[in-house]
Amino acid sequence: MSKLLELDDVTDPACCAPLSGPTLGEEEAAELAGVFKALSDPVRLRLLNMIASAEGAEACVCDLTGSFELTAPTISHHLKVLRQAGLIDGERRGTWVYYRVVPERLTRLAGLFALPALTSA
Amino acid sequence: MSKLLELDDVTDPACCAPLSGPTLGEEEAAELAGVFKALSDPVRLRLLNMIASAEGAEACVCDLTGSFELTAPTISHHLKVLRQAGLIDGERRGTWVYYRVVPERLTRLAGLFALPALTSA
Repeated sequence: MSKLLELDDVTDPACCAPLSGPTLGEEEAAELAGVFKALSDPVRLRLLNMIASAEGAEACVCDLTGSFELTAPTISHHLKVLRQAGLIDGERRGTWVYYRVVPERLTRLAGLFALPALTSA
Repeated sequence: MSKLLELDDVTDPACCAPLSGPTLGEEEAAELAGVFKALSDPVRLRLLNMIASAEGAEACVCDLTGSFELTAPTISHHLKVLRQAGLIDGERRGTWVYYRVVPERLTRLAGLFALPALTSA
């Protein structure tokens, strides 16, 4: 998933261009499409919401499974998709894995939808 | 697509909550997942970029087809998906349809990824 992680390079001036800005290249469009595909599932959106809003900015996988009528392997699959898209990161500590959002990735997406010129129109 | 259009109600306080904010309900998660599904295609992202960055904030469909090695019906299909997701709006004037982005929808997505507490950490 090294290609996706390239998006995290916020020092790259092309990195955080809005959709209303410069032309989106084919390669970046393909990478972003992959991130949106990861986001195109209600369970994954709710998991991301739970992780992003967790106290201490991290969530134990043990606290994520209870909110869904889904098996632990299914939740793990969804978390893996979010992780492969670079949206979350996980760290094993003892028995459990703890997840955090990757702020650079979410900030990049926020920047993508920023429309300064249009929203003031 | 009336359900999707409900997201455009920016006067609703729950409308623009970030992922790091209140719990995302099942219904809103499903609606947002549909929007991200519309965004999970490189051609649609490039079309949205071309429309959002067009001079005068609108793009004639006649100017959108030339950048892709795709047939006009395929481009029309992608534009229809973006329109059904509430991301763009189109107006026929004479021979051509002119597209604009729906600023409220893009602003809602930008707000979704805003992470004030986390990005300053």
